[in-house]
Amino acid sequence: MLGLMQQHPLLISSLLVHAERHHGAQEIVSRRVEGDIHRTSYRELAARSRRLAKALAVLGVGMSDRVATLAWNGYRHMELYYAVSGSGAVLHTLNPRLHPDQVVYIADHAEDKVLCFDLTFLPLVEAVASRLKTVKHFVAMTDRAHMPASKIAGLLCYDELVDAQDDRYDWPQFDENQASSLCYTSGTTGNPKGVLYSHRSSVLHAYGAALPDALNCSSRDVILPVVPMFHVNAWSLPYVGCMTGAKLVFPGAGLDGKSLYELFESEKVTVSAGVPTVWQGLLAYVDGAGLTFSTMKRTVIGGSACPPAMTRAFQDKYGVHVLHAWGMTEMSPLGTVCSFRTKHLALPPEERLALQAKQGQAIFGVDMKIVGADGKELPWDGKASGELLVRGPWIVEQYFKGEGGDPLQDGWFPTGDVATIDPDGYMQITDRAKDVIKSGGEWIGSIDLENVAMAHPAVAMAACIAAKHPKWDERPLLVVMKKPGAELTREALLAFFDGKVAKWWIPDDVVFVDAIPLGATGKMQKNKLREQFKDHVLPTA
Amino acid sequence: MLGLMQQHPLLISSLLVHAERHHGAQEIVSRRVEGDIHRTSYRELAARSRRLAKALAVLGVGMSDRVATLAWNGYRHMELYYAVSGSGAVLHTLNPRLHPDQVVYIADHAEDKVLCFDLTFLPLVEAVASRLKTVKHFVAMTDRAHMPASKIAGLLCYDELVDAQDDRYDWPQFDENQASSLCYTSGTTGNPKGVLYSHRSSVLHAYGAALPDALNCSSRDVILPVVPMFHVNAWSLPYVGCMTGAKLVFPGAGLDGKSLYELFESEKVTVSAGVPTVWQGLLAYVDGAGLTFSTMKRTVIGGSACPPAMTRAFQDKYGVHVLHAWGMTEMSPLGTVCSFRTKHLALPPEERLALQAKQGQAIFGVDMKIVGADGKELPWDGKASGELLVRGPWIVEQYFKGEGGDPLQDGWFPTGDVATIDPDGYMQITDRAKDVIKSGGEWIGSIDLENVAMAHPAVAMAACIAAKHPKWDERPLLVVMKKPGAELTREALLAFFDGKVAKWWIPDDVVFVDAIPLGATGKMQKNKLREQFKDHVLPTA
Repeated sequence: MLGLMQQHPLLISSLLVHAERHHGAQEIVSRRVEGDIHRTSYRELAARSRRLAKALAVLGVGMSDRVATLAWNGYRHMELYYAVSGSGAVLHTLNPRLHPDQVVYIADHAEDKVLCFDLTFLPLVEAVASRLKTVKHFVAMTDRAHMPASKIAGLLCYDELVDAQDDRYDWPQFDENQASSLCYTSGTTGNPKGVLYSHRSSVLHAYGAALPDALNCSSRDVILPVVPMFHVNAWSLPYVGCMTGAKLVFPGAGLDGKSLYELFESEKVTVSAGVPTVWQGLLAYVDGAGLTFSTMKRTVIGGSACPPAMTRAFQDKYGVHVLHAWGMTEMSPLGTVCSFRTKHLALPPEERLALQAKQGQAIFGVDMKIVGADGKELPWDGKASGELLVRGPWIVEQYFKGEGGDPLQDGWFPTGDVATIDPDGYMQITDRAKDVIKSGGEWIGSIDLENVAMAHPAVAMAACIAAKHPKWDERPLLVVMKKPGAELTREALLAFFDGKVAKWWIPDDVVFVDAIPLGATGKMQKNKLREQFKDHVLPTA
Repeated sequence: MLGLMQQHPLLISSLLVHAERHHGAQEIVSRRVEGDIHRTSYRELAARSRRLAKALAVLGVGMSDRVATLAWNGYRHMELYYAVSGSGAVLHTLNPRLHPDQVVYIADHAEDKVLCFDLTFLPLVEAVASRLKTVKHFVAMTDRAHMPASKIAGLLCYDELVDAQDDRYDWPQFDENQASSLCYTSGTTGNPKGVLYSHRSSVLHAYGAALPDALNCSSRDVILPVVPMFHVNAWSLPYVGCMTGAKLVFPGAGLDGKSLYELFESEKVTVSAGVPTVWQGLLAYVDGAGLTFSTMKRTVIGGSACPPAMTRAFQDKYGVHVLHAWGMTEMSPLGTVCSFRTKHLALPPEERLALQAKQGQAIFGVDMKIVGADGKELPWDGKASGELLVRGPWIVEQYFKGEGGDPLQDGWFPTGDVATIDPDGYMQITDRAKDVIKSGGEWIGSIDLENVAMAHPAVAMAACIAAKHPKWDERPLLVVMKKPGAELTREALLAFFDGKVAKWWIPDDVVFVDAIPLGATGKMQKNKLREQFKDHVLPTA
């Protein structure tokens, strides 16, 4: 017997309709690539999104067609989020930091029909345009006055397309399992693979993301997503904004510390979200200029493990609470957030900081477990470390076009992360499975070692990789980028580990480098470091 | 093209599985009808729920069969919530405050197969047992030691049923649109009608209910639902508890001020929820005994309009923030909550209090509109007042067995409430449509007048009803219950209205009564008052 409640599909357009009707006057502020600060409201954004949906239909975009973007965080990108998905097409957010060859591979693989781009990326688009097999229309996301001279034939002007339509448009209603958006994994090995989100998975994920123990977003919040909208839908914040009626502040291309800080202060931002490497730039700027945050209450840090030294700096020095979070492109992306339980509130500061090194508790909608090499589930004792598997309604079932075959193991998605889970259900990533250092048959977690190194005042960034060892197979090698002007010796850094980790975990060697390579989403590329140091000879004890 | 995300139905059992796995040690505390305080955890409750599911199967309860309860808020009732719905049967929570004839009507209409009841309700069950046409098994929700002598043949013992099974049981997976639970409306006119919730509607509603701008529940909360679990699933709090991992505290039959207060303090309750009439008892007790709340942060007040005087008392005197909320059995029940926007935080206290007299903003998942007598939508100006209509995935489509025909108007459910909506989307109920006072063709909102009366220090409760008037058709008559020992005259009370409402809204007369009749869910029964005072002669001016 079925229940007798109303049937309304969970559609991305319903988020925008809610924001327009119930939070119509709420502001959306964008730093534009044109150079100015732009202000709009949910009401105006909804009207323009409807115009855009009509414009896309005129361009021949139909149900499930892919519309790609190469764009910063801004209101036009948000209009595309809603106009494309809301009209039944699929929003494909391309990562402009990828190599042009990868952009071509991904756009062809996705069979993108339209490509919309911010002016910043005109050179990239011009470099690849002739190689893209499926793209029929190129749209510069600007107004007529800023349209560039370009060799791209028939380059369209975004604002002109929008202005040519009226806003009389009803969002179509369809199956909530229809595809809504497409993101490709950064893929350090093999070709990038596409994750095809549905309207249902996106809306359920937004509910989960907004919960008090997750990102805790309300209509009183002013959210500045530093995490790019081309990176797993900016962790759902453009959806959470509409769901909660929060004010949204988009930083555009201004991701340097100074530009971000100015926007935080002028727009009274209460919450932000991004990867550790971006926060390093911001903290360095605020630190150097002797500034403070006057409205920022908390920041969500994920994408890579957040070093405790960064958590300490935000919290102790600036009073900004850190929410350490974990997720993946394959997870929409949110899986866990390290929010406190009641008993944690009374912990001494150092123990609380140690807890915050964990990636935290699962949001309702995500289940997780850790398994050993034999595939058997390991205990939640905070010590046993094994591969992390997840499942839930916003976790991938298979990749776009079936690439890579069936990724699931008995219904669970293997994350490729190695983790512990404590008795309270707080998960901590100890490593990427491929980054684990196997010393004499035992695993050494590279993230723990990096966190210790990062806590040293002279260290700007540290990566710990496995180096070949004749006796132990592998031993940890620490690759370190010093802070500008800082002095630090190999011996002093190794001595810094004393008493902080087990003796046999202490790295065998340190090499200092000018830069550690970062991938398109800001993660350290340890595979490149492993290649670079594959012949490194460790000192013999 | 469909998205490629995992398919997991939104099932009520998934809430319990989440709580067991991720918040297993969290406490659930109950004041039992046996007289003691009982402590369990989500882990134990989940295991007992599985045993109970097996026991129900042994009793012959199959998919979609109805299992009724007559029970207070307690852990056994919560086990039934999960065991019954989780196993695919339908939980039917009967309201023990109804007249026995109504209990019989409803149980027969629902075709309840099993009836589980707290010992308190043994006399009621004995009075109706022989008349119930479909109930095959009666289960006393207690242990063997407390089993009563009863004339009910084959009366079963709840704990014995549970103890007879082991906990090896996998929750069945099925269509999330399957019926999960059944509640009957209080129905002041005509027979009660059943609302048949689905697993989908219940889980989506729980997501909405837990959001920061709704009930704002986290794993740090200690929730004491005063609102009964026989009344619209205690506003979803048994589901929200599992979703968030909050500690739950169940007051059982101890709903007097003293019992509640003791539990608030001893269990460190942070949030509660209930109807205004219950809070009156609590406030009177705390007031009289000169006590304070040491952990309570907020309380959700709904079911009837919360008089500003009550909001003021909670906030100014006790530091407990009031969340004025609105919903209906037909809405699972939550529709709106009066949480603040940023601009409200800076309002002067009196203006903020005036805002809190509104029922607030819609949760994502609920849309609303007001319409005039012609069915045309009215503006959101905070002034125009019309019938309130709602729609969304946790709002009724039709009543059980099609009673009353199609209740919807063009897809919208007419609530029978009359309301205004301001430009920010804050809704305020001005009246029940049937309680509106029509004076000379204009509407007078009875709730506004009651709120003024309730703010008078000598008034315990006030109901405003329409009395016949030869010239104006109807004029307001105020029916007042004074506080014990308080002195108050008709003239003094009417003078109290001066300057607080429009002159022509001031009631024409006041009658003092010993008691105002309350319905089974704590609402004032104005239909009874209208009957009682149908021949009341208003003084002529």
